[in-house]
Amino acid sequence: MSLHPDRLFPADERTRAIAREIHQRTTDLPLVSPHGHVDPRLMSENQPFPDPARLFVIPDHYLTRMLFSQGVTPDQLGVPSVDGSPSEVDGRTIWRRFAEHYHLFRGTPSKLWLDYTFAEVFGIYKNLNAETADEFYDHLSVRLAEPDYRPRALFDRFNIEVLATTETPIDSLDPHAALAGMAAGNGRRWGGKGGKVITTFRPDNLVEPDWPGWAERVKQLGEITGEDTSTFDGFLAALRARRQDFIAAGATCSDHGNATAGTVDDPVKAAQIFDRAIQGEASYLEMQSFPAHMLIEFARMSVEDGLVMQLHPGSLRNHNEWLYKGWGRDVGGDIPRATEYARSLKPLLDAFGNDPRFRLVLYTLDETTFSREIAPLAGGYAAVFAGAPWWFLDSPEGMMRFREAIHETAGFYNTAGFVDDTRAFCSIPARHDVARRVDAAYLSRLVADHRMTEDEAAEVAVDLAYNLPRKIYGLEK
Amino acid sequence: MSLHPDRLFPADERTRAIAREIHQRTTDLPLVSPHGHVDPRLMSENQPFPDPARLFVIPDHYLTRMLFSQGVTPDQLGVPSVDGSPSEVDGRTIWRRFAEHYHLFRGTPSKLWLDYTFAEVFGIYKNLNAETADEFYDHLSVRLAEPDYRPRALFDRFNIEVLATTETPIDSLDPHAALAGMAAGNGRRWGGKGGKVITTFRPDNLVEPDWPGWAERVKQLGEITGEDTSTFDGFLAALRARRQDFIAAGATCSDHGNATAGTVDDPVKAAQIFDRAIQGEASYLEMQSFPAHMLIEFARMSVEDGLVMQLHPGSLRNHNEWLYKGWGRDVGGDIPRATEYARSLKPLLDAFGNDPRFRLVLYTLDETTFSREIAPLAGGYAAVFAGAPWWFLDSPEGMMRFREAIHETAGFYNTAGFVDDTRAFCSIPARHDVARRVDAAYLSRLVADHRMTEDEAAEVAVDLAYNLPRKIYGLEK
Amino acid sequence: MSLHPDRLFPADERTRAIAREIHQRTTDLPLVSPHGHVDPRLMSENQPFPDPARLFVIPDHYLTRMLFSQGVTPDQLGVPSVDGSPSEVDGRTIWRRFAEHYHLFRGTPSKLWLDYTFAEVFGIYKNLNAETADEFYDHLSVRLAEPDYRPRALFDRFNIEVLATTETPIDSLDPHAALAGMAAGNGRRWGGKGGKVITTFRPDNLVEPDWPGWAERVKQLGEITGEDTSTFDGFLAALRARRQDFIAAGATCSDHGNATAGTVDDPVKAAQIFDRAIQGEASYLEMQSFPAHMLIEFARMSVEDGLVMQLHPGSLRNHNEWLYKGWGRDVGGDIPRATEYARSLKPLLDAFGNDPRFRLVLYTLDETTFSREIAPLAGGYAAVFAGAPWWFLDSPEGMMRFREAIHETAGFYNTAGFVDDTRAFCSIPARHDVARRVDAAYLSRLVADHRMTEDEAAEVAVDLAYNLPRKIYGLEK
Repeated sequence: MSLHPDRLFPADERTRAIAREIHQRTTDLPLVSPHGHVDPRLMSENQPFPDPARLFVIPDHYLTRMLFSQGVTPDQLGVPSVDGSPSEVDGRTIWRRFAEHYHLFRGTPSKLWLDYTFAEVFGIYKNLNAETADEFYDHLSVRLAEPDYRPRALFDRFNIEVLATTETPIDSLDPHAALAGMAAGNGRRWGGKGGKVITTFRPDNLVEPDWPGWAERVKQLGEITGEDTSTFDGFLAALRARRQDFIAAGATCSDHGNATAGTVDDPVKAAQIFDRAIQGEASYLEMQSFPAHMLIEFARMSVEDGLVMQLHPGSLRNHNEWLYKGWGRDVGGDIPRATEYARSLKPLLDAFGNDPRFRLVLYTLDETTFSREIAPLAGGYAAVFAGAPWWFLDSPEGMMRFREAIHETAGFYNTAGFVDDTRAFCSIPARHDVARRVDAAYLSRLVADHRMTEDEAAEVAVDLAYNLPRKIYGLEK
Repeated sequence: MSLHPDRLFPADERTRAIAREIHQRTTDLPLVSPHGHVDPRLMSENQPFPDPARLFVIPDHYLTRMLFSQGVTPDQLGVPSVDGSPSEVDGRTIWRRFAEHYHLFRGTPSKLWLDYTFAEVFGIYKNLNAETADEFYDHLSVRLAEPDYRPRALFDRFNIEVLATTETPIDSLDPHAALAGMAAGNGRRWGGKGGKVITTFRPDNLVEPDWPGWAERVKQLGEITGEDTSTFDGFLAALRARRQDFIAAGATCSDHGNATAGTVDDPVKAAQIFDRAIQGEASYLEMQSFPAHMLIEFARMSVEDGLVMQLHPGSLRNHNEWLYKGWGRDVGGDIPRATEYARSLKPLLDAFGNDPRFRLVLYTLDETTFSREIAPLAGGYAAVFAGAPWWFLDSPEGMMRFREAIHETAGFYNTAGFVDDTRAFCSIPARHDVARRVDAAYLSRLVADHRMTEDEAAEVAVDLAYNLPRKIYGLEK
Repeated sequence: MSLHPDRLFPADERTRAIAREIHQRTTDLPLVSPHGHVDPRLMSENQPFPDPARLFVIPDHYLTRMLFSQGVTPDQLGVPSVDGSPSEVDGRTIWRRFAEHYHLFRGTPSKLWLDYTFAEVFGIYKNLNAETADEFYDHLSVRLAEPDYRPRALFDRFNIEVLATTETPIDSLDPHAALAGMAAGNGRRWGGKGGKVITTFRPDNLVEPDWPGWAERVKQLGEITGEDTSTFDGFLAALRARRQDFIAAGATCSDHGNATAGTVDDPVKAAQIFDRAIQGEASYLEMQSFPAHMLIEFARMSVEDGLVMQLHPGSLRNHNEWLYKGWGRDVGGDIPRATEYARSLKPLLDAFGNDPRFRLVLYTLDETTFSREIAPLAGGYAAVFAGAPWWFLDSPEGMMRFREAIHETAGFYNTAGFVDDTRAFCSIPARHDVARRVDAAYLSRLVADHRMTEDEAAEVAVDLAYNLPRKIYGLEK
């Protein structure tokens, strides 16, 4: 698969030429990755990647869900089962199965990302299919054994300026501490405050009392922080303390995957629910409302400690029961739901929406909210910014619709810039490449029909790719 | 009206040339029509079509509703009234009224279909308007009297491979039996299993207890099948038996026009509601929930007998009270509603969503669900496929938005292919022509901006037009 | 900023040439402005406009909300505060602040409108920024002092045929009476029935019992009309009488900004709620439902007196609490909400939806309703028309999506034509320019891909720009 230099640019020659010029201005900019799910041990341990199937197929639920949807079962793909029942272990067999079905991904972002990665990262310029499967496997395996393909070498080759991982408050920050101990050249360090790899504070598993093991995790948080988390005040104090640990490990953001964007500003009630939940006596509705209470508490903490709040609501988690029972969480079984922001966030925005110390980045899986709620909120509150199109919408068409629907109301400067949101480290350059090309394509249209000058568009392109994410996610220092 | 060979292709010359090449690959493929509303007696009796007004205007609620919306009343168009009050009977007068208002349809799919039909089927290459109305009427009348314009002759000229009609369980299958008795050349028969004209099992009028006459129809089902439909078990047995009759008449699918996509998996409760409904004692909410119970029962039957389930939810039927009271059902008075799939279908998907014996094709009138629910479900469950854009969305812009919103998450191979969904037999080639052109146009864009190769796109175009509907609607055998 | 003659036209040269031809047909047509918020005293008093900041920045909440969203506070922009606390008063200082932030508006409709106004109305062909701020301010100030820049001179220069203002029933109609006394050339008068400036009947502040001061305003209505508004019958009689005053002042329309599109046809219940509300005893739910009752009453009045009903639902008013408390209503703090039309309007449509004496123009802030509800309603009821894309959607991309989503179901002739909906008098030509260009661009695409002929498209363009709004808003006489 050769990568055409004009890929994702408008077909019209006049507009394409403009897109080329705009895009050219962003190609040498470092990658800024303020939100993602790469395992920090990848960087701290810097071990070679495993075989191609374990690197590319098994952990990527974009790929496995498409294969499931066409009848290839998780065990045939080596996805580890919950009960340890046997599944395919041979990397080459899994790879061949994947390659045979690669036509399913025609025209999808997954294929764009993989083809870019095969070509630009691994130097393979062929089409993957049943015939070429082994050739790919062999070529990739050779490369993965080379020192230049270790994670930290790739990190530098990818020109990543900063990469944020995501940890829960009870996760160990040891990998980040290890990284903080490593010099990275030019006076920077691999980890820690201002480091190349930083963490993000994601407390979902501590704010959903009906998530199995919640009380145990709350206790664990107490142990980590030395606070008495059997009371709501102690729980809040522990979270505040733990955020300081995260900040020391470089965190500039928190992240929240609540089911809805609901917020309730009633600390007394929140404390009552917490008490009842700890005692296992909270009702279903109380447990459902607790994350809405906690979102306000976390906003309050953000005003104090400066962590930028990211909100990712609207996913029906583990919708595919068969997948969930057999293979657990995060294997591709989530489905979006209609999501409401304006009324849901009002209590939070009443409290902090215009506070210069607070920043809230809103993401969505429900694109109807782009023009109806997110753009008006981002263009109407000092604290609110529109996050990059997320997950199912992180695609050329989805990104284009995001710009078309957001930009006229909120402008470019109330959008927070691209985040790759990936656990697939090798795909990071590919994802930024798509985002920069789609933004260049959108801007080129505005230039071609004389809504902007080319100079303005080029400046905006650089801001979207580099300056805005650095500024809005607090990465400038 | 001459038909431009590049109609519906992108304007950009580079992309248009690609679209031409892709489209060229599909032009000789037979038409596969797995979902529609043509009257089977049209084929079994093979009588000449009536006059142009009765063929084109009176039964087409796309046309009559547009005319109503501009003040032309149903009686002026000869739509038969509920109480038999007089309406226009002269075909020529109705035709002239229609022609005078033909400008209302500028740029709409109705005009695309009609202009194609006038030109390609009837050889009229003029614009229809007040001046040409009589010329059209005379020309069409002459043609309609010719043997080449009888339904079965047109069927073959249209190159239709298979056409599915839609019947309720209490409808007679005699026309299909008659067709099954007729040889159709090349070893095929006109009707019956594997025939050119097959039926579809559509049980809506038996699952809505508040639809007037329900209990009477349930009784009738008992008489047809010899089952005791006064009990829920007998009712289910009768439906199962009747599905076998439909399968013998060629059916490969069932179809369900429930108000919502709601499903409830609770056969005990379903039986209770059935009993109460038969006795006329069911509450409003019970009656409303019965279709949700039955959808699971029908899925269970599909797993046994292999009928592919089609679901068409989200229409507020007979919204226009004045039309409904005066002219009855299905005359253009329905309005879409916001529709939810992910939570509504969860019970059904928990039970059968990954079952290789089950197949569910989802349609919608609410295009917000394309990217938010239908694509993730089709791309995440083995049993689920995205149906073609339906009704108000069965249009060039609607189809393009469908591809743009569905494809990046679900790919092409989780979409079920085009269905014409029409009772207007003569418009079938026009509708497939539009669909194939729009798909070629979408694919040409992906080729032009280097997301696909032209070879891949051509293969996909053939799959969308022919292979996928045959496979997914069970028409391959 | 020079204005490119091809702005907003498709980039593809073939399509652009078509767009030019279509657009050319509309450039000399008078502007018809059937819905807006210009202060009628502007025209009746014809005083010079104030300084550039007071003309362009302070009253335009599109501009101030964008600046708030980036941390520029209302007091820094001279927005008058509720409690009279001091804010910037120096026009030049405010103007400079605005100019420094003008990059925030890149590619937005606000910038399109302003750049057009600077160039076409005031003859400034530069980019506004920090460097040119003073030059703009000086140039604009000089022009604003000239007689040719008085409101009525601009009105004629803008080629406005008719401009509708918006008044509440208790507003004075004196400015309109004054205008009715002034000859305007060609046998027309500036105001009154058939005048150049007419009013619109907007009773929102009389139908929301929980809007502070409601009972007082109801009393005031009684005083104006001489009716006893302490009873519901008297209240209705007063509204009917006041509508006659508005009709004498040229009104052809009423306008309704209800929170939802809900309607209830139950006059007995409405009277009970009114009585309880007058006595301060109405419940929250009763007060919330009163506008839904009143919408039916106003429709009933429309059937009698012929005022065309406009409905603008779906705004969460004063969502930004900080803005509302500090700077009051209508300063940019509203946020859209999901809006339902089909079930909400059913009682009203059951009563009058097919009545030839009634006309209802539906607007929305929720574009998901374009294809799902508004187009099917406009294309299915004789009385219903789709209003122009409103507020956040009154933008090139928003207008294009409106046409794409509405047109295939409702056609062009069930859309009501453009309304500028502005209080910014000087921006009126700019807004109509954008609308005519976007419609030409949409039509050019339909011509380029052979869905329409160029002749048809040119005729449609003229109808959209001129004939349809005149006809549908009752401005033909």
